Formats: sequence, C-alpha cells, structure tokens
Amino acid sequence: MPRFPEVSARSARISGSTFEKFLPRLRQHRDGFYKLHIGDSDRGPNYVLPYREDFAAQNPYAFQYANTWGITRLRRAIAEKLRDENHLSVEADEVLVTGGATNALSACVHAIADPHEEILVLTPSWPFFRGMVQLAGAHVRELPFYCELRQGSIPRIETYLESAITSRCVGIYLNSPNNPSGVTLDEAELTAVLRVAEAHRLWVVSDEAYDQMAFDGRNTLSPAALGVAAGQVLTTFTFSKTYRFAGLRLGWATGPRTLLEAMNKIMVHMIYGPTVPGQYMMVEALRTRREWVPSVQAEYQRRRDDFLDALALDLHAPEGTYFVFFDAQQFLGKEPIDALVARCIDAGVAVTPGEDFGDDYRNWIRVCFAAEDPERSRQAAVRLREILA
Amino acid sequence: MPRFPEVSARSARISGSTFEKFLPRLRQHRDGFYKLHIGDSDRGPNYVLPYREDFAAQNPYAFQYANTWGITRLRRAIAEKLRDENHLSVEADEVLVTGGATNALSACVHAIADPHEEILVLTPSWPFFRGMVQLAGAHVRELPFYCELRQGSIPRIETYLESAITSRCVGIYLNSPNNPSGVTLDEAELTAVLRVAEAHRLWVVSDEAYDQMAFDGRNTLSPAALGVAAGQVLTTFTFSKTYRFAGLRLGWATGPRTLLEAMNKIMVHMIYGPTVPGQYMMVEALRTRREWVPSVQAEYQRRRDDFLDALALDLHAPEGTYFVFFDAQQFLGKEPIDALVARCIDAGVAVTPGEDFGDDYRNWIRVCFAAEDPERSRQAAVRLREILA
Repeated sequence: MPRFPEVSARSARISGSTFEKFLPRLRQHRDGFYKLHIGDSDRGPNYVLPYREDFAAQNPYAFQYANTWGITRLRRAIAEKLRDENHLSVEADEVLVTGGATNALSACVHAIADPHEEILVLTPSWPFFRGMVQLAGAHVRELPFYCELRQGSIPRIETYLESAITSRCVGIYLNSPNNPSGVTLDEAELTAVLRVAEAHRLWVVSDEAYDQMAFDGRNTLSPAALGVAAGQVLTTFTFSKTYRFAGLRLGWATGPRTLLEAMNKIMVHMIYGPTVPGQYMMVEALRTRREWVPSVQAEYQRRRDDFLDALALDLHAPEGTYFVFFDAQQFLGKEPIDALVARCIDAGVAVTPGEDFGDDYRNWIRVCFAAEDPERSRQAAVRLREILA
Repeated sequence: MPRFPEVSARSARISGSTFEKFLPRLRQHRDGFYKLHIGDSDRGPNYVLPYREDFAAQNPYAFQYANTWGITRLRRAIAEKLRDENHLSVEADEVLVTGGATNALSACVHAIADPHEEILVLTPSWPFFRGMVQLAGAHVRELPFYCELRQGSIPRIETYLESAITSRCVGIYLNSPNNPSGVTLDEAELTAVLRVAEAHRLWVVSDEAYDQMAFDGRNTLSPAALGVAAGQVLTTFTFSKTYRFAGLRLGWATGPRTLLEAMNKIMVHMIYGPTVPGQYMMVEALRTRREWVPSVQAEYQRRRDDFLDALALDLHAPEGTYFVFFDAQQFLGKEPIDALVARCIDAGVAVTPGEDFGDDYRNWIRVCFAAEDPERSRQAAVRLREILA
C-alpha cells in the first residue's frame, strides 16, 4: 500500500526511456554532441506567428478559461483542414483540441481500455504510447509489423493480425507514417488493418503525428477516410511535426462523438483544457498551410537524402517521418548493443536504442535527420558510419 | 468489456459537473446573463507580457521540446518565489512545472494512490479533484470540514480527522484558501492536519491555487513551511488565479523529490510537458510580483466587500478566494434546490449548485464575485438577493 514515503505501484509500472541510462555519459560532452536521439526539428515554424503587442487586445479572451473542447475558431479551421487535406467528413464539433497528441492519445487509451484489458500495438512503436497503456493499468500486446511488412515477411495482414488478438483486446494502435521506421502504409495495407478491427469490433487508434510528412510522391492517408470501419477510428494529430511547434503542446483528435465525449471528460481531469493563447496562434497557421507545408515536406525529403548519402549504409529509405531506423546486428559482432550505443555517445553522436520501440528491436538504432542543421546532420552521419564500420 | 462502440467503465465512473443539466436553460439567455457560476477573473494579467515581435528571436528554443520538468529560468524564478513568499526551502530542481495545477494534482493522485485505495477529501472541495481520484480508480472519502470548522462544530481537528481515516487511506487533500468556502486555515489549524498525516504516514496534497488571495490582513500559509511532516507534503500552485492567466494552463508542484519524479513520469504520459512559450512568458511575471500582487489582493477584497454589501445576506465573509458559498436551505421552503438554481438561471444569474462540492452541500450555492466587472457583479448580487427573498 502506497503510504508516505512510498509511491503508487502504478507509477513504478511505467517503463521510462531506455536512453536514461546513457544520460550521465552524454553529460560528459561539455562541448556539445550531435543530438540524433531526439524527435524534433532544429527549425521553428516557417509561418508567421501573432507575437505582436496587440495580441491581448486582438484576443481578449485568450487569458481566460475556454471551452475545454477548444476555441471555435480553431476547431473550425481544423475541421476545414481535415475535410480538405485528409478527406475526413468532419465538422467543428467533432474536433477535440488537446494538450498535444500525447494528451489526445492518453485520454483515448483511458477512454477505451479498463485495467487488465489489452491494446494491440503494432511495432516498432513510439515508446510513450506503451507507457500510457501502463498508466491506465492495461496491457500492451506488441506485434512486430512495420519493418516486417517492408521485409516481405507478412504474407497476409489480416491473418497475421488476427493471430495476435486475444479475448481481452479492445483496440489496435496504428501509426502511419510510423515513428521510428518511417514506413508509410498504403491504402491496401491500411484497409487490411481496418477489416480486422471491423471483424473483431476493435477501436482503432490512428496516430497521425507525421501527417503530410511522406516522401517520394507518397501521400499520408487517414484510415478513417477509407470507407472501412470509419466509425470506430479515433485519429490524433499534432502541431509538433509539420507545424514545427513542439513546444506549444497542442494537438487534436477526431472520431465518434461518444468516444470524444469520454476523452474530453478524462482530459478535463488531466489538464482541464489545452493552452488558450496557443490555440489563437494556430488558426492562421492552419489557414495558410498550402503556402508552406509543401516546402516543409520537400525540405525533409532533401535532408533525408543527404543524410542517407552521408551514412552510406544499405538501408530501406524511410518513406516518411524524420527518422532512420536500422538493424545494427550486422555491426555488433560480439559487442552488446548497449556497448555500441555507448561508443556512439562517446564519439559525440547521440542515438536512441531500439529497445525503446519494442521488445523485438533491441539491436536496432533510431536516428533523427532533422534535429541538427543540414551540415551538422551530414557530419553526424559520416561519424556514425565510421563508428559502425 | 469496452469494445467498439463501448467506452471504458473508467470514463463512465467520472462524475461530470452537476451544472451540466442547467446548460440548456442557460443557453436560452441570448442577451447574456451574469456568469457567477465560473471561477475566473474578468480581467487579464496586470503585468506586462512579452508578446513582442522579437519573442521568437529572444527565445529561440521556445518552439522545441523542453525539459519535461520545465525550463531552468522559470524553475529558478519559482523556487525564489517559494522561498521568499511561502517560506519553503526549495531549490529549482525541486520544482516540477505542469500543465496547470489540474495537471499537477492529477499526476499527484496517480502517483500516490493505486486502484481501490482512498484519499480523504476535506469538503466542500473543488469538484475536479474528486474526478481525478475516480479517473485513477481510487476512492474519495469526503469529510465535511471547512464550513464546519468556522461554524465551531469541530472541537478538535485531530480527533475529527482520525475518525475518518481507514486502512485504505493514502493521503489527505487540503485546500486553503478553500474553493468554494473561502475558508483560509491558520497555522494552528494546518498544523493539526499535518499532525494527523504524520501519525498515520499519509501524503498531504496541498492545493494552493489561491495563494496570496486572502483578505482582512490574513496570510495564505503553505503547510510544508510549518515544520511538521514537511517531507510528506506535495504542494501545487497555478498561474490561473492571482496571476490571472487561466488560459495559459500553467502551474507547478513542489515536494519530496521521489514523489516529484513519479509525478513527472506520469505527467509525461498525460501531456509530455507543459507549454514552453508560456513558460518563457511567466518568468518576468514572477520576478515583478511584488509590484502588482498586493494590488490584485486589495482589488479582490474590495470586490468581495461590494458584492457582500449588495447581496445583503447574513453570511460569514469569505476569508480568501473569489467565491461566496452559502447554505440556501433557509430560502428553499418546500422548493427543491434544483428549482431554486433554475429560478436563478431564468432570472439571468448563473450560480453553481453545492452538490458539485460534496455530498453534504446539496442545498448550498457558490457564486464568484470576480467573473463579472464590479458594476455587473453588484447588479447580479442585487438580483440574486431578490430571487432569494
């Protein structure tokens, strides 16, 4: 029983980042290091933000509590974007603005899963989603999927997914473009996942953080727009990636109204509501997106190409996101992966150990090609190649 | 089992606001109404905010992910304030910046209570705290306290609290100045509560949202500064009340490092971190607080006096906060409380039913004297007096 000085068993259950054990090592680099281990852009927004002296006068309600679903102006702008860019039939009242996509996903997990129930997590996956399921007292069932699909080792998605669904399963976590692998599912692949959800009455949690961040002419697709099981998909978005404003902590969710209502009630008891001045700031960013989103996409594709050229490894080029995820087994010999990660850090290149992304990726490594400016990214790739060689 | 289209039992368990049933009635007032039912100030910050065109240039990292504990500059400014104004021995690394005090309290509840454990909630209490305990799967044990203390019906706090502590109890929720009653506990009263916590090894969750908002020469006191059981107190603060920036959604917690670490891990899985540009904005507000906090306090006291004069009921004047909470039993006759609340709303005065603040306050009413400008507040008080008469 958690009584002072003990804390709850719940908090002990949440697995922190594997990377933490490398932090003391990282801190020894007083002159800096290449931070390929984080998932953020080195550049801020490339649209105009209303940081003007008349902000308060122009937005007199930005200081007060607002509708916990989000301000109307922003919800309308989001709904318009979702209809136009994601082909989702969404009205403003089907948009729930949240404290980042993290908050949307956390509220969703709490809204669909009770303790001891299970969510099928297609891996490799963003580590925090697994932590949220643990926070909610539910179980994660990991299923290696994205890399395996591209390696051709999943002959039929439906059969493969069905083999992993237990009687306790309430939902599937889907993330395309996928962090960390960059795999961007096409319509047939997404439809196959949706058919399984439909047949088993599972919620689909579609994490679209990397919306509009696919390369080589690919489009990012919203599963809820594909005409299969659309009513059981909850989709989350963020202003942290294409909109390059991770610091703002603002995102949103759309989906069936009953689920959004449950999520709102949960969100209110986690944060009350998302930051209000930030909501006023993003209305124009959404409205002007056609002017700047294509250049962001093109820029990331160029940076991916330059990074891969400098890295010069035989890799499947990421189809989206700003990550490169690769199996480091071939470079290990008898060296354990932790020793390799430590060697990278000692040489000034911070990388993320694959273990954070799922049990099956212990010997993999993730690097971000957008967290340093292009020239430093190239230098980091060259150095990483030398370490691995 | 929650499968599509069902949501979790957890979300159904969280009791929403009693006020919701009155919303359709409120929406009939197209020409507006007196909104005494909310807990917010009609005025924005009375300190200068850095909404300037050079904000981005001055704060180049405000766009990116930051330390999830908060930015160093803000944590230092908070620690300085806590030492100077609250007499707490706190260093910057003992400050956890959060997405509002709501987020701090929610993370704290999840960090100290596992499902089926109990938190003793002294009532009347802020309704969202009870919802957080429900979200965490734990139980609320309500104990009427603040009003009863002022009515003289609690001869000895220690004996009274001990009678309510069960074997499942892990903590006590304390909130002084108290929303809704305005009761502001003195040193002897707080010390008595702390002694009980010490004797039973209970965590004390001290919600100090109304820090610096006490009247008639009273000081708001931080229990963790009183020298009893200091190591088992977790204290939360907000920028929403004295700082009048509820829209920002920023607050903080301080307490034992082990508990803060558990809270940070939980918070990261609810929101990742609090809004970063907002953190940069509040550094100056903290540094200049001596220049403007006294005038905010004096202004609220004046507004309380004017409101009470116009209301002209025989009430214990609130000692702090911007609420008046009173037993409406005497005005009810055979009319149920819901009918009285409906009559208030129909007459254009929105009030909060007491049920939201605890099972023992069903016939009470809370009104806020700061949510409308002073003249409208006076008008609302006069109209309320007429309804009750």
